[in-house]
Amino acid sequence: MVSRLRTEPFAEEDLSHDAFLGGRLRMAQPKTGYRAGVDPVLLAASVPARAGQSLLDLGCGSGIAALCVASRVPGVTLAGLEIQAAYAALARQNSASNGIALEVFEGDIADMPASLRKRQFDHIIANPPYFERDRSTPASDTGREKAMGEALPLADWVHAAARRTGVGGTVTFIQRVERLPDLLAAMATHLGSIEILPLIPRRGRAARLILLRGRKGGRAALRLHDGWLLHAGENHGQDGADYTTATSDVLRNAAALPFPD
Amino acid sequence: MVSRLRTEPFAEEDLSHDAFLGGRLRMAQPKTGYRAGVDPVLLAASVPARAGQSLLDLGCGSGIAALCVASRVPGVTLAGLEIQAAYAALARQNSASNGIALEVFEGDIADMPASLRKRQFDHIIANPPYFERDRSTPASDTGREKAMGEALPLADWVHAAARRTGVGGTVTFIQRVERLPDLLAAMATHLGSIEILPLIPRRGRAARLILLRGRKGGRAALRLHDGWLLHAGENHGQDGADYTTATSDVLRNAAALPFPD
Repeated sequence: MVSRLRTEPFAEEDLSHDAFLGGRLRMAQPKTGYRAGVDPVLLAASVPARAGQSLLDLGCGSGIAALCVASRVPGVTLAGLEIQAAYAALARQNSASNGIALEVFEGDIADMPASLRKRQFDHIIANPPYFERDRSTPASDTGREKAMGEALPLADWVHAAARRTGVGGTVTFIQRVERLPDLLAAMATHLGSIEILPLIPRRGRAARLILLRGRKGGRAALRLHDGWLLHAGENHGQDGADYTTATSDVLRNAAALPFPD
Repeated sequence: MVSRLRTEPFAEEDLSHDAFLGGRLRMAQPKTGYRAGVDPVLLAASVPARAGQSLLDLGCGSGIAALCVASRVPGVTLAGLEIQAAYAALARQNSASNGIALEVFEGDIADMPASLRKRQFDHIIANPPYFERDRSTPASDTGREKAMGEALPLADWVHAAARRTGVGGTVTFIQRVERLPDLLAAMATHLGSIEILPLIPRRGRAARLILLRGRKGGRAALRLHDGWLLHAGENHGQDGADYTTATSDVLRNAAALPFPD
């Protein structure tokens, strides 16, 4: 996804303008390329941010997750880091068009701009790109990841996030469940009070996505929560046609998706 | 738990005789010391063993898990490895008194008897002792584990299990959820097709225990299943008074606790 970085800006005719959170946000997105689905919306809904706190979205793309947080919790100072200039420009455009301040930094997560390296945040969120990996590849084979030119290893995302988090602050990732071993190992190395919230497609089905949170300096034991149920009923209907009430509230009414107490 | 190994046999007056699986098994256990609870029974219920296959219980204690498997699936060849001579003797006694063949090896998981090292099994199960660890200890600090004389690190349990498993065979552990990072990392190193089944005390509560399974040579993507619900209702009643029907069937009727398809 980032193996060929897009630097030239998107032309207006290459963009669609899509409603999120029941129309609270209107987001310009490329018609082709990375388009936000429900995942960054679910991620944003899970962040325990309060007014007066700060948040950094690592790999913010067009800005959807950060802007979703602000839609639910006014008064959060937002920043985003994006490696692709075209997406960073889109994030600035979406910030302006939605009237929500979002400071967008352009740069690499593994080599952040100096102005960002000076700062720490109360909350860091990330929705790293999902890669199709050879399933037989050992979980920790980051060399192969790099060799394939796919992206920064997840462990480096977590490490970078931990460095930018103030003590007591949270780091929350959304990721495919297949990456749990990598992500959990990295979180256990750099953070404490780790919590896993499986996103269960339907009662009795395995999670495809997980929300994973750690706390800088946290000392609580790891928690694996009962899963958050996305869809109701037994059968696969039209996507989105049968969300649970709680999930529908998250996606359409900007409700929270809280990790259980 | 194993820092002081018990070698002298238990005296009859030190033993209780307890019913498991609704009376299908009657187990001699020390009145004080390691006594089987529901955990090894849940572990045994989750093993996908079929008649004609073989099973090894690492750290078999008084033999409860292996004997539970045989109660549900007749025709499985059972073996157990136990480091403490007194518990190995109890396992032999329980095998005889219940009329279920169980070959008990005495020895260390990290340095197995030569006769056991020659063999491979279709299924390996383990319920390693649960330790209270300092919650701030890094998950992978096995040196500290060893220094505290507590036990073999979980990674060594998994490695030993993987070596004794035939290709296509399964390794299933039950363990406290806090140990998920260690256990998952070890499984991802030595096994494939990893599946996590959280044991959820009550709907909406975090798991305290997990069943974790890997397959020797497995190539399927990791799966995190929707949790298995232990208790029904919202409130904590008397322990065991409010098991879900499915859990009660496991504990009292020797039913299976299958990982979902």
